[in-house]
Amino acid sequence: MTETETTMSERLDLFFHPRSIAVVGASNTPNTFGYLFMDYLVKAGYRGALYPVNPRNGEVLGFKSYPSLKDVPGDVDYVISCVAAGHVPELIRQCPAKKVRGVHLFTARMSETGDEEGRRIEQEIASEARRLGLILLGPNCMGLYHPGEGISYAYGLPGKPGRVGGIFQSGGLSINFIRYASLRGVAFSKVVSYGNASGINESDLLEYLAGDRETGLIVMYIEGVRDGRRFFKALREAAAVKPVLVLKGGKTGAGNRSTFSHTASIAGSTSAWEVLFRQCNAVQAADLDELVDLTVAFNFLPEITGKRVGVIGGSGGKVVLSADECEQAGLEVADFPEDVRGLIREREPRLENWLGNPVDFSILSGSGLMPGELMQIMARSSGFDFLICNVTEENPFDDIMWSQLITMETNEYLNILSAGIKPIVATVANPGLGMSHTGELRWRTLLEKREFLASHGIAVFSSVRGAATSVSKLVNYFLNRKRMQAGGAK
Amino acid sequence: MTETETTMSERLDLFFHPRSIAVVGASNTPNTFGYLFMDYLVKAGYRGALYPVNPRNGEVLGFKSYPSLKDVPGDVDYVISCVAAGHVPELIRQCPAKKVRGVHLFTARMSETGDEEGRRIEQEIASEARRLGLILLGPNCMGLYHPGEGISYAYGLPGKPGRVGGIFQSGGLSINFIRYASLRGVAFSKVVSYGNASGINESDLLEYLAGDRETGLIVMYIEGVRDGRRFFKALREAAAVKPVLVLKGGKTGAGNRSTFSHTASIAGSTSAWEVLFRQCNAVQAADLDELVDLTVAFNFLPEITGKRVGVIGGSGGKVVLSADECEQAGLEVADFPEDVRGLIREREPRLENWLGNPVDFSILSGSGLMPGELMQIMARSSGFDFLICNVTEENPFDDIMWSQLITMETNEYLNILSAGIKPIVATVANPGLGMSHTGELRWRTLLEKREFLASHGIAVFSSVRGAATSVSKLVNYFLNRKRMQAGGAK
Repeated sequence: MTETETTMSERLDLFFHPRSIAVVGASNTPNTFGYLFMDYLVKAGYRGALYPVNPRNGEVLGFKSYPSLKDVPGDVDYVISCVAAGHVPELIRQCPAKKVRGVHLFTARMSETGDEEGRRIEQEIASEARRLGLILLGPNCMGLYHPGEGISYAYGLPGKPGRVGGIFQSGGLSINFIRYASLRGVAFSKVVSYGNASGINESDLLEYLAGDRETGLIVMYIEGVRDGRRFFKALREAAAVKPVLVLKGGKTGAGNRSTFSHTASIAGSTSAWEVLFRQCNAVQAADLDELVDLTVAFNFLPEITGKRVGVIGGSGGKVVLSADECEQAGLEVADFPEDVRGLIREREPRLENWLGNPVDFSILSGSGLMPGELMQIMARSSGFDFLICNVTEENPFDDIMWSQLITMETNEYLNILSAGIKPIVATVANPGLGMSHTGELRWRTLLEKREFLASHGIAVFSSVRGAATSVSKLVNYFLNRKRMQAGGAK
Repeated sequence: MTETETTMSERLDLFFHPRSIAVVGASNTPNTFGYLFMDYLVKAGYRGALYPVNPRNGEVLGFKSYPSLKDVPGDVDYVISCVAAGHVPELIRQCPAKKVRGVHLFTARMSETGDEEGRRIEQEIASEARRLGLILLGPNCMGLYHPGEGISYAYGLPGKPGRVGGIFQSGGLSINFIRYASLRGVAFSKVVSYGNASGINESDLLEYLAGDRETGLIVMYIEGVRDGRRFFKALREAAAVKPVLVLKGGKTGAGNRSTFSHTASIAGSTSAWEVLFRQCNAVQAADLDELVDLTVAFNFLPEITGKRVGVIGGSGGKVVLSADECEQAGLEVADFPEDVRGLIREREPRLENWLGNPVDFSILSGSGLMPGELMQIMARSSGFDFLICNVTEENPFDDIMWSQLITMETNEYLNILSAGIKPIVATVANPGLGMSHTGELRWRTLLEKREFLASHGIAVFSSVRGAATSVSKLVNYFLNRKRMQAGGAK
């Protein structure tokens, strides 16, 4: 990294750990943004000084309010602007006197509207901020979610910090992403929504998170980039030190058109992006669901560098489809290695040639070999690099007995996990339940098992396809990284 | 159809509407199959005569039991065999005296075990049944789910009859399928699990359901077929009169290996299957989730023969990704047609060049144009063949206000549906909830909305990708059918 870049990361780190925040355009009117950004911070438990700025109010949400930024007593590290675009230049000019580190412009309706005046004012603001040495985040973005500091840009985001960092060109999408991933046990170091990127851009953030000790894994949603060459360098360097998962918006003609009205981005050619991601060893997600799946995989799994999967659980057609989906995802569904086959022969000779990988649990029925034992045998075999365990739904019993059976199954997953003998992921079906269905034992049990497994550190997926695709991409990432490191060392 | 085939369909129709059922091997021991098959029928409310057959008991589940089939008073239309394979030949020989129409062999452990004795006894049974003119369903299958007759092969399958017919080589998979599809408002005419198919096979069932008035749509899961040429003919003829959705198990080397131990099927080459499905205009699903999605689409949507989609709801990155996913699925995300643009110009001139398709609802915020109005404008435009409506999650408000907003949105979907002006589908996110999350207003609201929409006849999907893929395949099916009919008429 050059000296200037190092400096920007240091400045960003200070900016993202503010001792005080001013919300400019703060309001007591519920569901206005001046109210919401105050309330997000209050609800998230921000512990620094919080200054609402608004010419009309003496107090906002119980905090003493100031007519303008310059009236705030003492220094302000971080400014959130909720005022209209026309007021921003004056706000920017007041920043140096308060030793402001940077400004987050929630303020929007600039270049993304497609009109000339919007574009002009965005440029004016950016150049003024640059001249005054201010960090500028936005415009047209949600800003910073930093659970460790009690900073949030939405209601109900988890307060527990974790190791996933996010860089999102869409704040709304990032909120969905954070919510969905946290349902599956993922927690975040910080997520930044950066919108039109007229100041801080995706490359600045990538360089910062690559060096951030709070962050072990980077997740990105991008529509376009400001400087392709710099982004390439930043992405390659980041992916060399920690996994970078990327979802690219605007891969089609129609998507491309939409990125402009969203963030004034030019999305560019899809094939060029594919090449870039491959060359950088960034892990690409096909859609938001897959981005969540990949995050779950990289968050919970160790480094796996082999593709031989043992698949366990389920029966009949489910087993056949599991095999198909694993192989389609690029995994190797090898038949039982000799050590496994030998142990089966010892226990149940007549199953030796019938049982196979994936394991059909219904074949075990009536035999002396219990599902849990077979799981242990496979976990201990050197013939598999990891296991995919399907919570079995295909059995003929009533819901009470079924829920007892899958309790035994899922407890066995945890035994394997805690023994540390083999990486293991689980699949729990996720059909589209309605609220009334959650009153039924069957569906309630599935929801309980998913939560139980995720809360105990298991990567849970809703399908074999999702699990297989995610683990396959994880293995590729680590293999490529090794290969690139070896190449670089020559 | 030939005369023989017609006769088989008529015989199957009688077999599937039995006035009496004997469960051979019936038992009072909970969770044995002899108990379960009795209990499934009792719980499903079978109204015909029910005869348990078991040499040891006087009564099973409160029904008078008989030592052997020949001891049952009067005729028996339908026999369910839960006895071991070795007892089946004698059972078969007793059938003619009781005027039995056919036998469902739940009995398994025959050719699918891979050993010679299993294969021999399966052949012996099949030839004996053929000689005696008996319909044979199985072996190694769950049999018949026929809600209209109160016949079921699992607990908790819906009792309400509907128009979807199913042909499943895997009974366990069919149970999952029925459960998942019914959560989304689908109901069934009859589903048949046919296992090793040594008697009745997939072609017999296809011909039968093609002519069945209770069935408007056929769903299949197959691993292999007995007679490729006949299957081709049956599939092509069925798909010419009603949609046939197919999930093929065993598309890969590992999957292929599994089909043998499951149903002794040889899965065959994938490319040959692809050609067959295309030539027959069968609609192929990539996996079980997509099979459910397709069933929902074909169950609820009318015939759509154009691919111009209007996408509504959500904001920011969600809109960009919606556009990408629609276009990747082969839909046309056309920009606003002139009639729509004109109406927007009238109402909000400054939005004319900013708003586009997909519609980003956040752009409407603060304008005089309400989301519901814009939906109506798009629904009435001739520029769109159908609408995909995303229940909006990306908004900054608290959960109470958010749930009010999406209530307005979803009510508008129903207005469009009931006005019959434009086919409409909805997407409701389906993140992997745990049981504890269902206590939170946000997640509860999503579950409620999904159920509300499905129960009012809307095809609900959990992603734009799912919705777009399903509708695109639906349009292709109807376009191909027209083209093939026109070709055939020449």
